[in-house]
Amino acid sequence: MKKIYLDYNATTPVHPEVLDAMMPYFKDFYGNPSSVHSFGQETRKAVEDAREKIANLLGAENPSEIVFTSCGTESNNFAIKGIAFDNKDKNCHIITSAIEHHAVLKPCEYLSKKFGVDVTYLPVDKCGIVNPDDVKKSITEKTVLISIMYANNEVGTLQPLEEIAKIAKEKNIIFHTDAVQVVGKIPIDVKKLGVDLLSISGHKLYAPKGIGVLYIKKGTKLHPLLHGGSHEKNRRAGTENVPYIVGLAKACEIALKNMKDENDRILKLRQKLEKGILEKIEYVQINGHIMKRLSNTSNISFNFIEGEGILMSLDLDGFAASTGSACTSGTLEPSHVLSAMGVPPEKTQGSVRFSLGHYTTEKDIDKLLEILPKIVERLRSMSPLWEDKKRSEIRD
Amino acid sequence: MKKIYLDYNATTPVHPEVLDAMMPYFKDFYGNPSSVHSFGQETRKAVEDAREKIANLLGAENPSEIVFTSCGTESNNFAIKGIAFDNKDKNCHIITSAIEHHAVLKPCEYLSKKFGVDVTYLPVDKCGIVNPDDVKKSITEKTVLISIMYANNEVGTLQPLEEIAKIAKEKNIIFHTDAVQVVGKIPIDVKKLGVDLLSISGHKLYAPKGIGVLYIKKGTKLHPLLHGGSHEKNRRAGTENVPYIVGLAKACEIALKNMKDENDRILKLRQKLEKGILEKIEYVQINGHIMKRLSNTSNISFNFIEGEGILMSLDLDGFAASTGSACTSGTLEPSHVLSAMGVPPEKTQGSVRFSLGHYTTEKDIDKLLEILPKIVERLRSMSPLWEDKKRSEIRD
Repeated sequence: MKKIYLDYNATTPVHPEVLDAMMPYFKDFYGNPSSVHSFGQETRKAVEDAREKIANLLGAENPSEIVFTSCGTESNNFAIKGIAFDNKDKNCHIITSAIEHHAVLKPCEYLSKKFGVDVTYLPVDKCGIVNPDDVKKSITEKTVLISIMYANNEVGTLQPLEEIAKIAKEKNIIFHTDAVQVVGKIPIDVKKLGVDLLSISGHKLYAPKGIGVLYIKKGTKLHPLLHGGSHEKNRRAGTENVPYIVGLAKACEIALKNMKDENDRILKLRQKLEKGILEKIEYVQINGHIMKRLSNTSNISFNFIEGEGILMSLDLDGFAASTGSACTSGTLEPSHVLSAMGVPPEKTQGSVRFSLGHYTTEKDIDKLLEILPKIVERLRSMSPLWEDKKRSEIRD
Repeated sequence: MKKIYLDYNATTPVHPEVLDAMMPYFKDFYGNPSSVHSFGQETRKAVEDAREKIANLLGAENPSEIVFTSCGTESNNFAIKGIAFDNKDKNCHIITSAIEHHAVLKPCEYLSKKFGVDVTYLPVDKCGIVNPDDVKKSITEKTVLISIMYANNEVGTLQPLEEIAKIAKEKNIIFHTDAVQVVGKIPIDVKKLGVDLLSISGHKLYAPKGIGVLYIKKGTKLHPLLHGGSHEKNRRAGTENVPYIVGLAKACEIALKNMKDENDRILKLRQKLEKGILEKIEYVQINGHIMKRLSNTSNISFNFIEGEGILMSLDLDGFAASTGSACTSGTLEPSHVLSAMGVPPEKTQGSVRFSLGHYTTEKDIDKLLEILPKIVERLRSMSPLWEDKKRSEIRD
């Protein structure tokens, strides 16, 4: 059975060219980039070349604005705690949204609970969009950071980032965005966006798991999260993960080169997927903004049944999808994103995220559209909710 | 020209078997271990198998005591800040030593400067050993953590860890050790050592740069450093670096299998190196304990000249060594380790660390012993200090 992966928002395979680029740095060029001898100089050059490439691809003013981390979660923790701790004597206040990834929400909750930081969690509309006016209204004299994600991982909704950045700038407040789901999918220009801090994760764009970046606009003051050696200009201690750094630069390069065509191709596949589902299955709902959305992400509620049940059945047929963030799967809590969007609990429970990517083909979608209606039908036939629904229809 | 690497304490190449073990997890098995579908289950199994292997190799009671991090620096920051923040409302006190790696010293300095944590930096004797009595005497009612490294990275001196652990245990104080330079070189049994927290770094033992472990003895309470998803049982958020985790387990396995023979072989080479230098070059001094020392590490002061000059000349001849920690190279400060050991500044300036490893051969040492005396002679011939010395000898 051919297995079909439709969970690219959870993680991606490493691109063959990325792997090729990394390979020499495991065995042949292995010096510590901090060493002054030739072994160290070789890897130092590799790291700095990668930094320059990534800076260029993000529109950063200076390569030194790129700080390598071990993952998107570290980048988010670094940004949020770094700013909060730098302002810890001020009883500070952070503004974020209710639909952020846990890698933003949990550091905020931690700061709030353990360090008395005041946090505002902004609501979103039914499409999952933060209202810039809400941002403006929430600002107080104590506000030191606004952190709003670029695109949501569960539903793909894109936020009005430039507008929010403008508000932050006017008030001289640092603006961070978790762009983990966006980098590699949409061209990014940090200057145009107007962000001060931006988080990247390698494994969402065909680089390996275990590498990230925090873009730090020149002049932005924050505490390091990892103290130690003077790596990354004293902003992130720890011997550089040279192979993955080289790999991440390669992955960014590949993504940018193919972005338009790849986006168009994937969008067509998603449209086919959604059209097919809407035609073939009744009582379904697409979650997220219909237009302002990552072209690869489709979050669909199948009423009267459980998302987990759909996933398990799909898995038996070789399909991988998810109910929400991989990072919270296994927990039985309903999606905080869909809840914040006002999706009622019974629809939240029945939601599935399909996220398409580089290796997704039209055949995959065809096969899914053949199998999924049968799965939904079978699960509904066993669902007491569905039975109630049918009975009430007969009554009406 | 064949290049000869004698800087294994700075970093090591990835062992070919480690690379082989990692390879399937880049392209073929790439699921997010948190995903519930089969792609995720494959990598979850790989992560948990690795965790179990490492737990066994360290003598841990339970695999869940192994928490994967991105490097030794992260492990140290996690341990130290994790304990301090868990006790932050108590005006807490930490005991460490003056010769720790910066990945321990800098988090302590940070906590002290920014969070009012009281830190005692214990002195060492001229061999670089902490006196357990000093530990005992420094304990106060506020002491929440003792952090003493297992072996020093610059001189290789081993600490009386079990004695210190016993003192900590008697007083019910958490004991952390930075074992980054030891794991892979000496068999480790965390229970026998009596430590509560122990830091490991992959790239010191032929796994890649960018993976580490913090061993956390069951029941040890500390704050996470990275908040987010529920990875690592809520102790370290961030998608697991599956290939490197698999690689680290393999590296630990290989190290333990060959440890005795490899240690004997390397010790003989180091003895040859030190004997040769003492015979061929006058005014030299071996730093660190003559017996209680990592068998691969040799730190030697060459009087009247600069270590940096020796390194540069060695580099031109294809040899890689270092003056101290790679993490602080480039800074012009004298080694804090040698200073704490009471080595006078002029000898500290002239010190070089040779650290031997898996690929070091007798021929390499022969070649070094051929070249090094010439380098030292040439540098001394240009050194005003040397000239003074010679003049004073004539006068005497």
